[in-house]
Amino acid sequence: MRSNLWPIGFLLGLSAAAPIYGESDVPPAPNGIELPAGYKNWRVIGISHRTDNQSLRVILGNDRAIEAARAGDTNPWPKGTVLAKIVLKDAKHAAWPAATVPGKFVHAEFMIKDPEKYEDTGGWGYARWVGEDQIPYGKSEHFDQECFGCHTPRKENDYVFTQPIPFP
Amino acid sequence: MRSNLWPIGFLLGLSAAAPIYGESDVPPAPNGIELPAGYKNWRVIGISHRTDNQSLRVILGNDRAIEAARAGDTNPWPKGTVLAKIVLKDAKHAAWPAATVPGKFVHAEFMIKDPEKYEDTGGWGYARWVGEDQIPYGKSEHFDQECFGCHTPRKENDYVFTQPIPFP
Repeated sequence: MRSNLWPIGFLLGLSAAAPIYGESDVPPAPNGIELPAGYKNWRVIGISHRTDNQSLRVILGNDRAIEAARAGDTNPWPKGTVLAKIVLKDAKHAAWPAATVPGKFVHAEFMIKDPEKYEDTGGWGYARWVGEDQIPYGKSEHFDQECFGCHTPRKENDYVFTQPIPFP
Repeated sequence: MRSNLWPIGFLLGLSAAAPIYGESDVPPAPNGIELPAGYKNWRVIGISHRTDNQSLRVILGNDRAIEAARAGDTNPWPKGTVLAKIVLKDAKHAAWPAATVPGKFVHAEFMIKDPEKYEDTGGWGYARWVGEDQIPYGKSEHFDQECFGCHTPRKENDYVFTQPIPFP
């Protein structure tokens, strides 16, 4: 699978020495998508707090995504965009009870834009790795239909919930 | 003022072509601190949601800060650390009412670690720029006593409220 994804790395202008897919010891998702290496170093696009499942989220993007977000060019997002959502369980700040801060790491999930490759799921490839052990989510290769289903109400926004931070 | 801060840039291993202080059209804070250039491109350290003033926050750090956060070396944070807190007014997600997402940009505020230079305020220099127009906060050079006062209850944590995200 990794070799199939190399062309995306080159499209994004990354060198062969820095593959964007594949963390050595983390298995791929059941649909073949590999954990994007170095996603923790990506820049921030958005944040959110969901009170329905008590979680804080920070949404990071690869260079293509950041460029698009800052240019307001996000409907549709360009091919090569990768969005990473990091989800953390709510915790209360010990010294500031009115502040919700990151507790346990819940999961990291990704949307990878490639209209041809991921035509069956709205042009986005979906994958998620759960917990500190980064266990791939999903029991079969079709697990991503669940992701796609939840994102379908946002079809008019290229299936994306995230609203980029309005930086000055 | 800018020339006084250049040595910090060199300590951080940044090239002379990429000054970390000074955005051309933004005035410095009343205590002389200049807006760290390019802070929007820094990596993420933490997030929080304050229900007492209805705001979401994302905390970014310069390279020195990120290194320290990932190594768990944050009490004290090393000299040269710069923390940037971006504060956004709460908004409700139009398509997901239980999600709080970034509304209006409130301000960006900074803590700059230099135990000698900022001895009077616990080893940290403080500055804030308000709103989309990035207006420097504070009426006199002593405005930072207000920042210091609010951070003093966290003295045992090197005056920092932010709890780094527990990335896998």
